[in-house]
Amino acid sequence: MVIEGKSVFSGVAIGKLSIFNKKDNTVKRNTIQDVEAETKRFEDAREVAKTQLAGIYEKAVKEVGEVNAQVFEVHQMMLDDLDYVESITNMIESQKVNAEFAVATTGDNFSDMFASMDDDYMRGRAADVKDISNRVISILQGNSSDADMADEPVILLADDLAPSETVQLDKSKVLSFVTRHGSTNSHTAILARTMNIPALIGVDYPEDANGKVGIVDGFEGKIIIDPDEETLKIYQEKKKQEDDKKRLLQELKGQDNVTLDGKRINLYANIGGVGDVASVLANDAGGIGLFRSEFLYLESDTYPTEEAQFSAYRKVAENMAGKKVIIRTLDIGADKQVDYFELDKEDNPALGYRAIRICLTRPEIFKTQLRAILRASYYGNISIMFPMIISVSEVKKIKEILAEVKAELDAEGIPYKKDIEIGVMIETPAAVMISEELGKEVDFFSIGTNDLTQYTLAIDRQNPKLDDFYDSHHPALLKMLQMIVDNGHKGGAWVGICGELGADTTLTETFLKMGFDELSVSPSMILRVRDKIRSIDTTK
Amino acid sequence: MVIEGKSVFSGVAIGKLSIFNKKDNTVKRNTIQDVEAETKRFEDAREVAKTQLAGIYEKAVKEVGEVNAQVFEVHQMMLDDLDYVESITNMIESQKVNAEFAVATTGDNFSDMFASMDDDYMRGRAADVKDISNRVISILQGNSSDADMADEPVILLADDLAPSETVQLDKSKVLSFVTRHGSTNSHTAILARTMNIPALIGVDYPEDANGKVGIVDGFEGKIIIDPDEETLKIYQEKKKQEDDKKRLLQELKGQDNVTLDGKRINLYANIGGVGDVASVLANDAGGIGLFRSEFLYLESDTYPTEEAQFSAYRKVAENMAGKKVIIRTLDIGADKQVDYFELDKEDNPALGYRAIRICLTRPEIFKTQLRAILRASYYGNISIMFPMIISVSEVKKIKEILAEVKAELDAEGIPYKKDIEIGVMIETPAAVMISEELGKEVDFFSIGTNDLTQYTLAIDRQNPKLDDFYDSHHPALLKMLQMIVDNGHKGGAWVGICGELGADTTLTETFLKMGFDELSVSPSMILRVRDKIRSIDTTK
Repeated sequence: MVIEGKSVFSGVAIGKLSIFNKKDNTVKRNTIQDVEAETKRFEDAREVAKTQLAGIYEKAVKEVGEVNAQVFEVHQMMLDDLDYVESITNMIESQKVNAEFAVATTGDNFSDMFASMDDDYMRGRAADVKDISNRVISILQGNSSDADMADEPVILLADDLAPSETVQLDKSKVLSFVTRHGSTNSHTAILARTMNIPALIGVDYPEDANGKVGIVDGFEGKIIIDPDEETLKIYQEKKKQEDDKKRLLQELKGQDNVTLDGKRINLYANIGGVGDVASVLANDAGGIGLFRSEFLYLESDTYPTEEAQFSAYRKVAENMAGKKVIIRTLDIGADKQVDYFELDKEDNPALGYRAIRICLTRPEIFKTQLRAILRASYYGNISIMFPMIISVSEVKKIKEILAEVKAELDAEGIPYKKDIEIGVMIETPAAVMISEELGKEVDFFSIGTNDLTQYTLAIDRQNPKLDDFYDSHHPALLKMLQMIVDNGHKGGAWVGICGELGADTTLTETFLKMGFDELSVSPSMILRVRDKIRSIDTTK
Repeated sequence: MVIEGKSVFSGVAIGKLSIFNKKDNTVKRNTIQDVEAETKRFEDAREVAKTQLAGIYEKAVKEVGEVNAQVFEVHQMMLDDLDYVESITNMIESQKVNAEFAVATTGDNFSDMFASMDDDYMRGRAADVKDISNRVISILQGNSSDADMADEPVILLADDLAPSETVQLDKSKVLSFVTRHGSTNSHTAILARTMNIPALIGVDYPEDANGKVGIVDGFEGKIIIDPDEETLKIYQEKKKQEDDKKRLLQELKGQDNVTLDGKRINLYANIGGVGDVASVLANDAGGIGLFRSEFLYLESDTYPTEEAQFSAYRKVAENMAGKKVIIRTLDIGADKQVDYFELDKEDNPALGYRAIRICLTRPEIFKTQLRAILRASYYGNISIMFPMIISVSEVKKIKEILAEVKAELDAEGIPYKKDIEIGVMIETPAAVMISEELGKEVDFFSIGTNDLTQYTLAIDRQNPKLDDFYDSHHPALLKMLQMIVDNGHKGGAWVGICGELGADTTLTETFLKMGFDELSVSPSMILRVRDKIRSIDTTK
């Protein structure tokens, strides 16, 4: 029996299927006499819950990193929320009901309230308030709050998994996560990526699957229940190859990015949001070579505030603990449209009003972002990178605006990294041609190979009609790359690649020979590229 | 009194206004007795008309060139058209009417028939058949067919002017043409450009303007009737400056394009249709550096036939009488859309399916054009140029297709220029970067600076929001130009510019120093660029 789903992490798992059973926290309404005693029961349970959550938080930090563990700090804070606590104690007092019933009723009410809100973030809190209420009820009823796990490792099937549930699982017993609900960016998905095990969502498994043998194919996004002999054999072979590869990659953690002849290169990661940091650390990247800031604008209904930006940048900087974090300023426009920017419809948006062009003509947006980045720079090792540069005068204008913002912060006595490194994306043919001049103006270059290839070949890479003409290894592009490295170095800038081509291991040797200082790739490619680097001898 | 209109040629004219009066060819129906005599009257008049037209044709060839004079050959042929002639003689015979009436009625009928046709070309013939009928009637009635002209030169006002009317005018007496109707590409407009006098269309002048003093401002597109003293003075000064400039330019005809220190460069013209050749010759261009072939596709309701294309290419080649004519193959797509190509709507058409990309994926269209060009090459000095090249493999594929077409013509025994020169447009950054390799494959390069600048700067030049970022003298572009010249020469190709930048006289000296072999500019810029070249000393 084969059931299709959506893969959130690749890989193969083979093992016994185990349906995850939620604790039965059915609550009965009882009338109580001693209000004071019942209130104390609740308060005691609340304290136990907070202690449990503090422990879970510590465990989670180790497993999925500080950023993703923060949900359990939120849970602790919720348990201290006055509205929540008073609603429960009031109910015990006025209605003379047992603590379990008061917690369950209040939990449901608050959850419904959150669920009806417009804001995505607040809606997400509905599950959290249910989660903490269940925890308190379990404690009151004397139920263990740890998930019962089988003795042998299993493929875990569940309707959905709350963050607190996944964290308490004995990870050494989980081969794969398979859920009916959940999303690509759910906590379970992040956990699976961090644990490097396959995971599927949207799988409508039958209840009688429990205890049967199953195969999770995280490449094809399907689960096979009760496979026949032959299928099992094929997947066992596939899994063996995967395991060998994984073991090899895991061995590369903590190793240098160094060639056989001793050439070193920095290997950084590209991220598109705060939540990606866990994966960056799990894959042992040396830093973040491209932190796309668009998510702050895309997820918001209006211009994100300085505070919201500052908080996100600071979180990433702190979590990277001194490792380099290169934040790219706003790259809205072209295929990334945001309603509240009210950009005109354009005939050729890829050749249009986008990125630095918007920032330089609407400096109020630009300055807010620069203030937030500078303020965050005090909490880590942040650099700033500017997209879509075509001229030296743009860079000079940017430097003027940056100096203004710095002066403002100085006047306000707000600390920031005074000697913050600045760099430019090299993603237009113009920037390539004037790279020697640009190299004198900035500390580093990062090549956006996707856009650069598009403009160089005059081909919209999204256009399927032109696939036969598109060539990501086009000799014109390779010549440009060499020109950029040489000119960058002449001007005193270090030079990296943060476009997709950086992760193309058929070119890793070429990049090393060209003299690149850095490659920034998606977190999941870090160890593969490191593996490649360590196999190369550039003298041969 | 100021009346606005649309300028079809710039310049200033000051003089007496003269409204052009059409001959009064009012025709009365008379009954005749002697059919034979009346038919002879018509036949005699027809012969006189043909003789007149032959004379007019000779005069027109001298005035506007062979291509534009061909309308009078068409008129002669129409007078021999059997349907037309028989319709008139039959009417005289069967209805016993006078020749004038038979000619007028037949002329109106044929004219109405042509006017109701779908085809633009045929609709254009409606005016021609009226024109020849009026000519025959004038002869029959003993009216002079020459326009009465004033003694002094005048600004000629007219509802519209038929080709035969403009040709018969004493040009030395015309300071400017101003018409109520007409189009930018009408015969009058072409004549004005050739005569180098200002002309306006769409001017609704009052009938009492006749005899008054007027000023035609062909720069602003307006006519001033009865100007005040001060206005007159301003325009007299303006005209003097214009005249000085014109005289200077006329003196440059027949001169070499040579610098003070003896450096020579070819100066060719860009054209977009057969009708532009007159202007090319009138401005003394050394050849045609860019013959855009799109007009054949844009003016047609379906794919133009090999014959239609052959005829156009041959006409231009013959009229250029041995001078170089570089035909660029189809550059449809992007901002030039043709319905019957059924091209998909694209997100970024400038980076889309266009030009050589269409030709290489739809070789049947490409082969038809190549056959037509090769056949025409037998009648002049034709070269072929291919647009939007990004790779050597495209050029190799083109050469294969060209060889196939040549083999077909050989097999059919059709003559063509065996060693026809081929070249590529350099208008993508990719082509710039691989120009050394491309130079080994072709005989010449021509740089399309408009597109090249657009792709290099990643700026759609049609987008007004980006004017502040666009820079046609961008250092990246200038570096590319030098790279293209050097690489082209290394590979053995001559190198020219056919984009708008070629006519930018602030860069002429730069182009000469870079080592360009050719500049191809709009016909009206030829003498200005020559003037500039002759003032430069590249050793200084």
